[in-house]
Amino acid sequence: MASGRLQGIFTPNLVPHDANGNINEPELRRYVDWLIDRGVHGLYPNGSTGEFTRFTVEERRRIVAIIADQTAGRVPILAGAAEANVKETIAACEYYHELGVRAVAIVAPFYYKLGPDSVLQYFRDIGNNTPIDVTLYNIPMFASPIDVPTVQRLSEECEKIVAIKDSSGDIPHMIRMIQAVRPNRPDFSFLTGWDAALMPMLLVGCDGGTNASSGVVPELTRKLYDLTLSGQLDEARRIQYDLVTLFDTMIFQAEFPNGFRKAVDLRGFNMGTGRLPQSDNQRSNLELLSRTLQCMLATHGFTGEPVGGCPVGEASAVDNAEVTRIVQTVVAELKRRGIT
Amino acid sequence: MASGRLQGIFTPNLVPHDANGNINEPELRRYVDWLIDRGVHGLYPNGSTGEFTRFTVEERRRIVAIIADQTAGRVPILAGAAEANVKETIAACEYYHELGVRAVAIVAPFYYKLGPDSVLQYFRDIGNNTPIDVTLYNIPMFASPIDVPTVQRLSEECEKIVAIKDSSGDIPHMIRMIQAVRPNRPDFSFLTGWDAALMPMLLVGCDGGTNASSGVVPELTRKLYDLTLSGQLDEARRIQYDLVTLFDTMIFQAEFPNGFRKAVDLRGFNMGTGRLPQSDNQRSNLELLSRTLQCMLATHGFTGEPVGGCPVGEASAVDNAEVTRIVQTVVAELKRRGIT
Amino acid sequence: MASGRLQGIFTPNLVPHDANGNINEPELRRYVDWLIDRGVHGLYPNGSTGEFTRFTVEERRRIVAIIADQTAGRVPILAGAAEANVKETIAACEYYHELGVRAVAIVAPFYYKLGPDSVLQYFRDIGNNTPIDVTLYNIPMFASPIDVPTVQRLSEECEKIVAIKDSSGDIPHMIRMIQAVRPNRPDFSFLTGWDAALMPMLLVGCDGGTNASSGVVPELTRKLYDLTLSGQLDEARRIQYDLVTLFDTMIFQAEFPNGFRKAVDLRGFNMGTGRLPQSDNQRSNLELLSRTLQCMLATHGFTGEPVGGCPVGEASAVDNAEVTRIVQTVVAELKRRGIT
Amino acid sequence: MASGRLQGIFTPNLVPHDANGNINEPELRRYVDWLIDRGVHGLYPNGSTGEFTRFTVEERRRIVAIIADQTAGRVPILAGAAEANVKETIAACEYYHELGVRAVAIVAPFYYKLGPDSVLQYFRDIGNNTPIDVTLYNIPMFASPIDVPTVQRLSEECEKIVAIKDSSGDIPHMIRMIQAVRPNRPDFSFLTGWDAALMPMLLVGCDGGTNASSGVVPELTRKLYDLTLSGQLDEARRIQYDLVTLFDTMIFQAEFPNGFRKAVDLRGFNMGTGRLPQSDNQRSNLELLSRTLQCMLATHGFTGEPVGGCPVGEASAVDNAEVTRIVQTVVAELKRRGIT
Repeated sequence: MASGRLQGIFTPNLVPHDANGNINEPELRRYVDWLIDRGVHGLYPNGSTGEFTRFTVEERRRIVAIIADQTAGRVPILAGAAEANVKETIAACEYYHELGVRAVAIVAPFYYKLGPDSVLQYFRDIGNNTPIDVTLYNIPMFASPIDVPTVQRLSEECEKIVAIKDSSGDIPHMIRMIQAVRPNRPDFSFLTGWDAALMPMLLVGCDGGTNASSGVVPELTRKLYDLTLSGQLDEARRIQYDLVTLFDTMIFQAEFPNGFRKAVDLRGFNMGTGRLPQSDNQRSNLELLSRTLQCMLATHGFTGEPVGGCPVGEASAVDNAEVTRIVQTVVAELKRRGIT
Repeated sequence: MASGRLQGIFTPNLVPHDANGNINEPELRRYVDWLIDRGVHGLYPNGSTGEFTRFTVEERRRIVAIIADQTAGRVPILAGAAEANVKETIAACEYYHELGVRAVAIVAPFYYKLGPDSVLQYFRDIGNNTPIDVTLYNIPMFASPIDVPTVQRLSEECEKIVAIKDSSGDIPHMIRMIQAVRPNRPDFSFLTGWDAALMPMLLVGCDGGTNASSGVVPELTRKLYDLTLSGQLDEARRIQYDLVTLFDTMIFQAEFPNGFRKAVDLRGFNMGTGRLPQSDNQRSNLELLSRTLQCMLATHGFTGEPVGGCPVGEASAVDNAEVTRIVQTVVAELKRRGIT
Repeated sequence: MASGRLQGIFTPNLVPHDANGNINEPELRRYVDWLIDRGVHGLYPNGSTGEFTRFTVEERRRIVAIIADQTAGRVPILAGAAEANVKETIAACEYYHELGVRAVAIVAPFYYKLGPDSVLQYFRDIGNNTPIDVTLYNIPMFASPIDVPTVQRLSEECEKIVAIKDSSGDIPHMIRMIQAVRPNRPDFSFLTGWDAALMPMLLVGCDGGTNASSGVVPELTRKLYDLTLSGQLDEARRIQYDLVTLFDTMIFQAEFPNGFRKAVDLRGFNMGTGRLPQSDNQRSNLELLSRTLQCMLATHGFTGEPVGGCPVGEASAVDNAEVTRIVQTVVAELKRRGIT
Repeated sequence: MASGRLQGIFTPNLVPHDANGNINEPELRRYVDWLIDRGVHGLYPNGSTGEFTRFTVEERRRIVAIIADQTAGRVPILAGAAEANVKETIAACEYYHELGVRAVAIVAPFYYKLGPDSVLQYFRDIGNNTPIDVTLYNIPMFASPIDVPTVQRLSEECEKIVAIKDSSGDIPHMIRMIQAVRPNRPDFSFLTGWDAALMPMLLVGCDGGTNASSGVVPELTRKLYDLTLSGQLDEARRIQYDLVTLFDTMIFQAEFPNGFRKAVDLRGFNMGTGRLPQSDNQRSNLELLSRTLQCMLATHGFTGEPVGGCPVGEASAVDNAEVTRIVQTVVAELKRRGIT
C-alpha cells in the first residue's frame, strides 16, 4: 500500500469526549474498530471534521497515536499534521512518520488569506523536509486556496507530495487539477471531501474521498463507492441522492461538525459534548435534529425509529419533503453567504 | 415535442454584427443552418451568451423572429424573454408565442439582488399570465439566485413553468432541485448551462444543457451528450476533459462572450465586433487568443492550423500545458473574485 | 452653476405610480416642488433609488422631461442615462442635454461583471462622444466596479467627465479617489451615495451626496450637510446617528427601494405600488414597517404618530432598541451575504 | 487607568526574530522602549499584526511576558489571548492577568465560520470565567464576524467585557455598535483597527485604535489622533491622506504583515525574517517595496533617502503618483476578492 496511489474512502475521524471534555480513549478505540469492520478504506484523524483546531498540540498527537495503535495496520491512516508554522508542522510529520501512518494531510495556511506564491512556498518547504508522504488539503471556504498551477508545480517539484484532498465540491476544478498533474505524476491521487458530489467526482476521475458521512453511515458511503466503480450507475445515483439529503441535514442544520457527532451517537457511540460552546437554544435544536436524523437512519435500517415514531405512513418521504425544504433554504442561505 | 420534456443540447445563439454594429441577418441565418446541420437539439437566442442586455427591445424581438423563420420548425427554440418588468416580459412572451417558439427562458431579476420572496412572486406573476411554457433561468453570478424551495414552489403552482436552466455548475445543487421537483412534476426539465460539468450533470440526472461551446463545436458537444447517454463513459470523459480546456480558454481569456465570438469566426463566420467597447490592448489580446483557439480547433480537425503553425511536434499538448497554466491562474483568480 | 463643481445634496428621485402602475405625473410634479422647497441642492432621476431598470426607455426619458419641466432651473438635475449599449446611452445623453439638465450619471455596465479595461473603454467611448457633463456612478454591489486607476485615467483623458458618485460607503476608497484625481482636476466632484456615512464622507473631502434619505427627510439630510460643513460636529453626529437608524430601517427591512417609497407616502404623497411584484407576506411586512417608520418620523415632528400610538413613554427610544436589534441582525446578515 | 475607558492608540506589536527564527528578546525590548518614547498610548501583542497564529502557545506567553516586563507599567497592555478552545483561552487570560496587563483581546473563533449564536456563547463562556477585562476582536476578513446584536448582548451580560476592537473599517457598522452599547455601558470602549479610516472613526465616536502603522510611524499616528481630537481637521485630514498612502503600501504590496516588518527595519530595528516562508520572487519584491517605503518615510523625515536617491524633484509627489496607481490596482483587486 505504501507505494500505491491513495484510493477509496478515508473516514475523517470524529473524536469522542468524556464528561470532562477530554478525549475518550476507549470510545475512540471502539469507534475505530467499528469503522474498519464496516469497510472504510482508511482513517483520517485531525481533519476539519475532527476539529483539529480545537485541540492542543499534544492532544492532536495523542489522537493519532491512539488511532494508529488501534488500527494496527489494518487500514492506512492519513493524519492531519498542520501546526503553527513550517517548523512545527515538520516536527508533527516526523512524529506521525514514526507512528507508521501512511501519509499526512496538510491544510493550506489559514486565518491570513495567502496568495499563490506564499502557498506554494509553504508546501515546498514542507515537501522538501518531510520524511512522510504529504497530501495537500484544499478547503477554500476555511483556508487559503491552493490553486491549480500551485498543485501542478508542487507535483512536479516534490515527490513526497503524493495527493490532494479537495473539499470545494467543484467538479470542473477537479478536472483541471487532474489534467494538470496526472500526465507527469500517474501516482498522484485525487480525493474529494465533498460527500454531496462523491459519485460524479469518481466518474470524472477521482481516486476516492475523505467523506464525513462515512463516519456515520460507512456502509452507505462504501456501497456508493463500489457501485460507482463497477458502473452500476442507476443504483449509485439513488444512493448519492439519499446521501445528499443526509449530508445536507448533518452539515447545514447545526454548527459543523455537531450534526455528524449527533448522528454517530445514534449509531451507538457516546461522542459527548463537542469543544464548541453551545447555547441552550442550540442544544435543543440539536435534539430536534437528532430526531430527524434518527428517522433518516431508520429508513436505511441503521437505527430503530425514535420513541413516538417517525412522521406517518410513508414516513420518511413525507418527513423528507418538509425537512428537505428547510434544509434547502438553509443551504441557499449559506451559499449566498459564500460559505458553501 | 411541445408536450415532451425539454431535452438535449440547446445552443445559446451568438449574434453576428455587420460593419455598423447592427444585426447581420444573412450571417445569422447561415449560422442557424450550420448549427442545425451539426446536430444541436435546439436553439436558445437572447441568453447571456447572446448578450441580450446589449440589444434594444426591438432588436431582441427581431433576433428571435429571424431565427424562428430560418429554423422553420426543424428544432425547438427556447427564447430569452426577460424585459424591464413583469408587464413588458409578458408582452415579449406573447410575441414569442405567436412566432411559434417552444418555450421562453426568463432570468431572475438582476441589478438589484432580490430575496427569495420577490423572486418567487416575480415568476408567479409571469407563470400565471403567460401563454407559453417558461424555463426558469438561474445564473447566480449575474442575477438574483433562484433557490431550491422557490423552484419547488413554482413547479407546484404553475404548470406553465416546465424547466430550469441552471448555470451555477454546482452538482449537489442540481441534485437538490431534481429531488425537490421531479416526484411531483415528472415532465419538468433540468438543463445545465455550465459546459465544464456537462457529463457529470447528465450522469446525476440532468436532461440536457444550454451550452455556449455548442455554438463553436456543436459536433463535440453533441458527441459528448450521446456518449454519456449511451454509457460510453471513458470516451465521454476524454471529450469532457477537452471541452473543459476549450471552454476555459474561451470563457476566461476574454470578456464574456468575446472568446466564443472569436472561436465562431474560426469556424467560418463573420461575427463582426461585439457590442462591448474594446481597448486596443483587449483587441490585440483577442488576436492572440484567436491563434490559441485555432490550434485547439485544429487538433480536432475543425480548422486548419494558423499561418506560422502551432507550437512544435505534439503541438497542442505542449501548447496546452502553457495555455492551461495561464488559464488556470485566471480561473483561480476569477474564482477568488467570486465570479465563477 | 454649469461651470462650478457639483456640490451638495442631490435627491435620487422616486417615481410615484398611478393605480395602473404608470407614472403619476401630477404627483411627481408635486413631489419635485416639495423637495426643492425643503432645500435639496439638486435632483437625481433614474438612479438606483429611482428603479431605472424597471422602466422602459421611453419612460426613463419621460421622467426626466417631467422633472426638468417642473424644476424650471431652480436646482440642477443629474439624470441617470445608462441604456443598453454605448450608442443608446449617447442618444440618451443628447436628449437630456437638450432638456437642459446639468449633467448625466452613468452606472458602470451591469449584469456581466466587467474588468477594469472594459469599464475604462466603456466610459471613454461615452466621455468622448457626449455633449453633456458626465458623472461616473460606482455601485459595486449592483454593477461592475469602477476602480481608482480607472477613475484617475478617465479624469485625465475626458474633460466631460466631471464627477463620480460612489455608493460603496467605503471611506478609504473615497480618500484614494480624491488623492488620485483632485491634484489634476480640481473641478472634479466626489459624491457619496451611502447615507449612513454622509458626515464622515464630507469630513474627509467629499463634495456632497446623492442620498436616498433626502427624498424622505430632506430637512434632516440638508441640516446634516450644513452642520458638518460649518464644523458643528457634535450636533452633526447626533443627526448622523439618527439618520443611520432611519436609513437602515428603510433599506434593510424591505426590498429596496420599497422602504423609501413607504416613507415618502408618510410625508403625504401617494407613491402607489412599485414595479416589483410583492407577495401577500411582503405587503403585510411593509405595513408593519410603515408603522415603525411613522414612529421614527414622528419623533422628528415630520408626521403625527400612527393610530394607536407609538410604543410607551420614551417611545422612540424603547421602540428603537427593539427595531435596532432587528435591523442590525438583518444588516449583519446582508453583510455576510456580501450585499452591503 | 484600570478603571477608565480604554483610549488612544494601542500599537499592535510586531515581533523581531533572530537568525534562527526565534524571538529576538533584546530587540523586542528595544522596540518597546522606542514605541513608548514616541507616545503610543498602549501596546497590543499577539494581534493579527503580531502574527499570533504563527507562534506556539509558549511563545505567545513569552512575548507578553517580555513586553510586560519591559513596559513596567509605563503604558497599558492589551494582550491577544485567543487559544485553541475556551478552556485554553481562559488559562491564557489568567496568566496575562498575573502579568498585570490591562486587558486581553480575543478574536472570534476562526477557521470554521460560526454563526451569531456560537460566537455569543463562546464569548459568554469566556467573559463569565475570566479574571481580566476582555476586548472583543472583530476582524471579519479573517475570523467569524461578531455582529452588532452580539456585541450588545455581551455588553449587557458580561461586565468583564469592556471594549471591542473592530478591524472592518466600516463606519456605519461602528456607529451601529456605539448606538447599541453606549447608552447602557458608558464605560465600554470602541477601537478601530483600520488605519485608513482612523480620523473619521474618531470623529463619529471611536475611542481610539489599534493601528499597525503606529508601529512604524508612531509619531504620525499619534499626531493624527491629537489633531483630530482637538478639532484641527484640515491638518488632520492631510495626515490621514498620507497615512492612507503609507498604510496601503505596507498592507497591499506584500503578504501581511511583511510590509510593516520591512518598514520597521527602516526605522532602525532588525526584525529578521518572518515566520511565513518566502519565495525568491517575494524576497526581491520586498526589497523593491523597502525602497518605496524608505522614500515615503524620508519625506516625513523619519529616514534618509535610499542610496541612489528617490525619484526626481518633487520626488515623493511624482513617485507617489505611480506607486499610488499600482497600489490602487492591488487594492481594487483585493476588494474584488473580498479581502478588504
